[in-house]
Amino acid sequence: MSHKETPDWLSRIPLLRGASDAFIKSLPAQSHTRNLSKGQMLFLSDDPAEYFFIITKGWIKLFRETLDGSQAIIDIVPAGHMIGETSIFHEGRYPFSAEATENMQLISLPLSALKTEIETNPQMALAMLGTMAQHRKQQEQEIEHRTLQNAPQRIGCFLLRLIDQTKTDAPVTINLPYDKVLVASRLGMQPETFSRALSKLKAETGITVKGATVTCNNVHKLSTYSCITCSSEFPCRDMASGKR
Amino acid sequence: MSHKETPDWLSRIPLLRGASDAFIKSLPAQSHTRNLSKGQMLFLSDDPAEYFFIITKGWIKLFRETLDGSQAIIDIVPAGHMIGETSIFHEGRYPFSAEATENMQLISLPLSALKTEIETNPQMALAMLGTMAQHRKQQEQEIEHRTLQNAPQRIGCFLLRLIDQTKTDAPVTINLPYDKVLVASRLGMQPETFSRALSKLKAETGITVKGATVTCNNVHKLSTYSCITCSSEFPCRDMASGKR
Repeated sequence: MSHKETPDWLSRIPLLRGASDAFIKSLPAQSHTRNLSKGQMLFLSDDPAEYFFIITKGWIKLFRETLDGSQAIIDIVPAGHMIGETSIFHEGRYPFSAEATENMQLISLPLSALKTEIETNPQMALAMLGTMAQHRKQQEQEIEHRTLQNAPQRIGCFLLRLIDQTKTDAPVTINLPYDKVLVASRLGMQPETFSRALSKLKAETGITVKGATVTCNNVHKLSTYSCITCSSEFPCRDMASGKR
Repeated sequence: MSHKETPDWLSRIPLLRGASDAFIKSLPAQSHTRNLSKGQMLFLSDDPAEYFFIITKGWIKLFRETLDGSQAIIDIVPAGHMIGETSIFHEGRYPFSAEATENMQLISLPLSALKTEIETNPQMALAMLGTMAQHRKQQEQEIEHRTLQNAPQRIGCFLLRLIDQTKTDAPVTINLPYDKVLVASRLGMQPETFSRALSKLKAETGITVKGATVTCNNVHKLSTYSCITCSSEFPCRDMASGKR
């Protein structure tokens, strides 16, 4: 397959590697660029779903509302990823709400076209099964972490996923991808818990934090502390590609 | 499709509703019955996977081992369910370990046959995508619960999944499907935490517990208490079919 004119936002999506040439070529003409301001909703949970989206700039928060009005954060998804595609398997409704965490940009594409491609191209169905199986394993690990890791270890794990884990000797600088309140809620913590846990992590591993910049002089020390209660080996295959 | 001679263990698997007649008919001849004693391992995480399994009697524990030697429980799966089929998408290796929680029986079936059916029959690939999407939503809810529900609410949620949630007037009797230590670890709790949380749940909702039997005189009260921090509506569509 060669997609000489495939736009960058399209060629970066792993799922679409199973797609037919004809499908890939048909997408740009059906795409629309959307800009969202910080705090703007893209869709609500249970809304009828007509589009799936590829994020081209910024981060989007996926969440559900609980009966008592709090938000359960499902994920915070960066540029280069796709959202909303699983609506196909949820009776054509979005299985969560999506809100811009900052000014951002997305490409919208029709779900009906994706559905047809999955139904008629076995390679595409297999590609989607592969990405869903990978996601399933990541979710299992997330459940495991919420149970077995303490709060400082969960922050350590979050930081390790943002760096090249094989470079254990040199000091590394990590820029938090979004603000600390959001990092806390992504990790399922109250802001106060996050703050206390970050102090503990600094004391245990020697990392320093200045605003949104974290400096780690000893990645090995950070991983030894954070990964002891995790079932994945280090550097972790499961997370390395995710960066989220 | 008519599967007059389809054994009961085969016809109960939702995933196989997308399978071709020829595939379904070919399975019994390729199947083997296996009996496991309590505590016996079926396979280890990362073992090369040749078979998938349908549980016909008992419960099986799926877990991973962490670096410090503790177990991260992924699920405890009852009779009538399939395990190991996602190995197809994990380079032919089991993505977790499986251990019998009691004396149990399974049917083993060759993964290669399932793989071929998924690759050649689009209906089967779609059926598998559907079940994986459903599972994904359940996992998201599990992550949400570990964060937002307190321990008594998590036990309440576990109990509610074992009963007909629409019968809110009459008293119901619930038999715990496996022993309390295992229920605790399935819910990600230490036994002591579980014990304290169960006492709190009794006080809050009026349930009574005698050995493995739980009596609930007021399902409405149990659900009001347990489900307030959950994003699913009650009776909950997401869990109703699971019974696990």
